[in-house]
Amino acid sequence: MTHHDAVHEFAQMLRNLERWIDKAAEHAKAKSFDVDVLVSARLAPNQYAFAQQVQSACDQAKFAAAYLGGRKAPAHPDTEKTMAELRQRIQACLAFLESVPQKEFSGAEERKVSPPWLGGKWLRGDDYLLQVAIPNFFFHVTTAYAILRHNGVELGKMDYIGSMSARDPVAGREDARV
Amino acid sequence: MTHHDAVHEFAQMLRNLERWIDKAAEHAKAKSFDVDVLVSARLAPNQYAFAQQVQSACDQAKFAAAYLGGRKAPAHPDTEKTMAELRQRIQACLAFLESVPQKEFSGAEERKVSPPWLGGKWLRGDDYLLQVAIPNFFFHVTTAYAILRHNGVELGKMDYIGSMSARDPVAGREDARV
Repeated sequence: MTHHDAVHEFAQMLRNLERWIDKAAEHAKAKSFDVDVLVSARLAPNQYAFAQQVQSACDQAKFAAAYLGGRKAPAHPDTEKTMAELRQRIQACLAFLESVPQKEFSGAEERKVSPPWLGGKWLRGDDYLLQVAIPNFFFHVTTAYAILRHNGVELGKMDYIGSMSARDPVAGREDARV
Repeated sequence: MTHHDAVHEFAQMLRNLERWIDKAAEHAKAKSFDVDVLVSARLAPNQYAFAQQVQSACDQAKFAAAYLGGRKAPAHPDTEKTMAELRQRIQACLAFLESVPQKEFSGAEERKVSPPWLGGKWLRGDDYLLQVAIPNFFFHVTTAYAILRHNGVELGKMDYIGSMSARDPVAGREDARV
């Protein structure tokens, strides 16, 4: 599994997250409440609200692409107050993820990743991806999903997973995600 | 990132999950309630309870090790009703994960993975790991964590992440997880 593949999967999940926001908007409309109420919804008083879960998911993907692709991450200040602004944040993140070409992830496994919060220590690129970026990225998208579920939004496992690159044994190797 | 590394990370996260259960037990004791009340706690009426989140996390790890390591997965029936039984389930899963030697994951990227729920279709091993096993595994551990947080158990991000293979630039390459 390449580092480029992992960043591509983060992008797919962020697109799924946008669809959960669509479903939240449908739910709010059906129940006659303002969908932006959910922006500050949280599961525990000392846990991040929905907005911060989305911001953090975007940042985990952005920093993975930056550190592993050898790029400087663009600044995305955490100023979003509405679902519309959170969608823009996701779009800005996706644009950056797509801007890092596959070849720049070459050698990412052994790249030294030294985020500021490690206080001068570093992780091998492979360890950063598997022990930091992947667990944290899925933590934040799953918690965003859980906040919406907890508030009655009708989501199911296929909304979470989205599409897969399943192949048909008759048609042979197919690359379309289904 | 190798498939063996990914299965090893699943095992690390399952050990973290055991420590969250320790903290749930401490919380229950401090608040004078039976910790097994949390076994059936859930975030939404039509979402899995804690027990099923733990069972599903174990199964995602188990089937990843089995499919990608070319092994038959052992049967682990979903009969757990107590935290003590859920700990045993995690231990049984860990014992299986550790039983698959690293060399058996050789070639896992291209292995055809055809779980029964795909109805005869298949996924490349790499796609199965990245599009199915990783998102689902972290979905279930994160939701288990969220259920405990929602019920007042004092957990933080470092409980979620556990240890990391951070290296010190002075001491050179260190393999211990910190």
